[in-house]
Amino acid sequence: MINYDAFLSRAAENMKESAIRKMGTVLAQARDIISFAPGYPAPQIFAWADFQEIARELLSGADGSVLQYGPTRGYRPLLETIAEIMAGRNVRTTPERLLVTTGSQQGLDLVARVLLDPGDVALVELPTYTGAITAFRNVQAEMVGVPQEADGIDLAALDDTFQRLTKEGRRIRFLYVVPNFQNPTGLLIGLDKRRAVLAWAERRNMLVVEDDPYRDLYFEDSATEADVRPIKADDGNGRVIYLSSFSKTVAPGFRVSWIDAPEPLAAKFETAKQAADLCTGGLDQRIVYEACRRGVLARQLPLLRAHYGHKREVMVKALEREFGSQVSWPSPRGGFFIWATLPESIDAGAMLARAVEEGVIYVAGEAFFVNPNGRNIVRLSFSAPTPERIEQGVARLGRAVRAELGITGPVASSRGEVPRAAR
Amino acid sequence: MINYDAFLSRAAENMKESAIRKMGTVLAQARDIISFAPGYPAPQIFAWADFQEIARELLSGADGSVLQYGPTRGYRPLLETIAEIMAGRNVRTTPERLLVTTGSQQGLDLVARVLLDPGDVALVELPTYTGAITAFRNVQAEMVGVPQEADGIDLAALDDTFQRLTKEGRRIRFLYVVPNFQNPTGLLIGLDKRRAVLAWAERRNMLVVEDDPYRDLYFEDSATEADVRPIKADDGNGRVIYLSSFSKTVAPGFRVSWIDAPEPLAAKFETAKQAADLCTGGLDQRIVYEACRRGVLARQLPLLRAHYGHKREVMVKALEREFGSQVSWPSPRGGFFIWATLPESIDAGAMLARAVEEGVIYVAGEAFFVNPNGRNIVRLSFSAPTPERIEQGVARLGRAVRAELGITGPVASSRGEVPRAAR
Repeated sequence: MINYDAFLSRAAENMKESAIRKMGTVLAQARDIISFAPGYPAPQIFAWADFQEIARELLSGADGSVLQYGPTRGYRPLLETIAEIMAGRNVRTTPERLLVTTGSQQGLDLVARVLLDPGDVALVELPTYTGAITAFRNVQAEMVGVPQEADGIDLAALDDTFQRLTKEGRRIRFLYVVPNFQNPTGLLIGLDKRRAVLAWAERRNMLVVEDDPYRDLYFEDSATEADVRPIKADDGNGRVIYLSSFSKTVAPGFRVSWIDAPEPLAAKFETAKQAADLCTGGLDQRIVYEACRRGVLARQLPLLRAHYGHKREVMVKALEREFGSQVSWPSPRGGFFIWATLPESIDAGAMLARAVEEGVIYVAGEAFFVNPNGRNIVRLSFSAPTPERIEQGVARLGRAVRAELGITGPVASSRGEVPRAAR
Repeated sequence: MINYDAFLSRAAENMKESAIRKMGTVLAQARDIISFAPGYPAPQIFAWADFQEIARELLSGADGSVLQYGPTRGYRPLLETIAEIMAGRNVRTTPERLLVTTGSQQGLDLVARVLLDPGDVALVELPTYTGAITAFRNVQAEMVGVPQEADGIDLAALDDTFQRLTKEGRRIRFLYVVPNFQNPTGLLIGLDKRRAVLAWAERRNMLVVEDDPYRDLYFEDSATEADVRPIKADDGNGRVIYLSSFSKTVAPGFRVSWIDAPEPLAAKFETAKQAADLCTGGLDQRIVYEACRRGVLARQLPLLRAHYGHKREVMVKALEREFGSQVSWPSPRGGFFIWATLPESIDAGAMLARAVEEGVIYVAGEAFFVNPNGRNIVRLSFSAPTPERIEQGVARLGRAVRAELGITGPVASSRGEVPRAAR
């Protein structure tokens, strides 16, 4: 029997399975499970009929390049379309600064490989997106977390952390932020703070990696397009590497996302992508391009905002009904997630087995922290289930929490009387 | 102005643009260029009508999972289909040992990341596939080359190299081979030699990375299915990591390939893929699965063999006509390539500018060597151009070579009288 461990790279030794992807495996096995775990968009509202018609035309065989290998940078007309999309976000760019990626996960991976050596530090928000954690960890970088306030990253803590690490002789490569409806917290960085982040990067000669998959999904009752202005929009000096995606607005099955970066970095990302997967799928890129060109995406966006805004409303109400003041969360003004703090005695990771028994899953908060934290927090995604299933799922979650606390009545009326025994 | 070089990882500093991909850029710019450069399949013979019908059904909206995020391992029915394909190649496997990858390039990248630390050695054939070179170089591994004979890798040289490096204290991780119709040489490893490679790996406690994208494309006039038996077929002890692909047989635009590896390694590749791109495109996987299930692939294979076998014939004849004995190549019994050695005084890299002027491109041999070599060799891909274009392209190549040699008549009749001045 071969000992394969002896063949593993140090990077591979440190690789850990994603907590979210693990939930996918639970989901694949199980019977009637309501999933609040992965941030899946709702397939019911994809523009199926348009995709069908577009695919029919593309697959006529008239244009062989649709299914051929394509340029690593991406399909040129799509790059030009992305430049227009960026202009709509107040960012002036050109195809020379853009790169199509196979999902934003590849964007994060390319950022990691091009910018991070083993032992380098990436500054991240506390909590932060798990996909970024895994990408940065896989190149053996260290992530150091910076706490967030109600309007996003704590700037004083950011600079303190920077100075402390610099004194320790650590090499810090960039700050990673998700400014809009952050995964997992749903938080939005305030507009003043965005400019302050940029000023900080300038002062400290840092790069900023701005990951922005949710910006189009603001809820019109509580946010406007002005609130989601990218940090990149004010980036006169080329400090910001901006990532965004069609996964949440067109469909994730197409794996089409992009990076907008200063030209020398975009060229390096392209070279790294050559070795990573040569090019993003041709049919996928063409369908997304046609969906943009024909106005399908523009037509979808208001529908998506209404759809996810409504589901957020349903989940918020169900949580209030089920838990009252026992559970709290920052009110999400867009995106896919509610970041819910459960009664302090709950260990969300340990509770998961019971939740699966009850027929509901979530992602335990710890997965999003690069320090030990988030024990009694859960990330609840309201994007994929129907409103009815959201209500059912929250009721199931209530049963799991009650069982964990040893309470028989509703959690909402227990008034924080958490029995000692349950701790 | 920011000095971005100061932000690059050591890996990024060493990244080089792929010679083949660079040709793609030349191609995109230029007017009437006949390309013998990238190993592109011929889109005319893709099963367009089948893809169109399959896509129409998949995009009806009846099954939302088609465009959703999917499991990192791959679409389960596709994994089961791949297991059947492997059985047809005399390899017994299960979905637990399989992983769908976003093209074989991703497979090579995952192999590199999971098995190679900076400074580790990967043994490769001389010459070898450039995509492997870039993937291994991007994790800062060193490649050491082993010469090939007419029936593939030189086993004595392999073991000498192994022993020399071991004495030097180098850590050797695996041997990378392309046993069938190797890219770039078109060579086939002999059946006895395949077993000897495996015995060597056993004796030296090595892993073998077997990259096999071309095996279905044997030319029935000169090879049989018995000739392309994978090394993996005799791998009783789990020494072989096997990569193969639908890119050359279904279409590269779908980016669907696979790895078959011992279970512990397959699990590590999966974890690495989570951070690399989460999952391969859902629509792509489903179309490829349906193409297999409905017998489209099985129906295509004999057509592909005939198609590429014919084009090989056309190129061989054109080269003989144009160059006579001045140019030589191992006769390709399958695959996409002719590996042609030009008169010794030719520098194929330097000649490229002239070739572009004449309206033909190729890949200069140096790109495939991990040592300084291949100066007067070109890789000519006959797979994509029509027979007429192949003949035209060889004539243009002849003009470029003649101009380079300072000859006015046909090269074929120059009888090796290479003028000194041209050296």
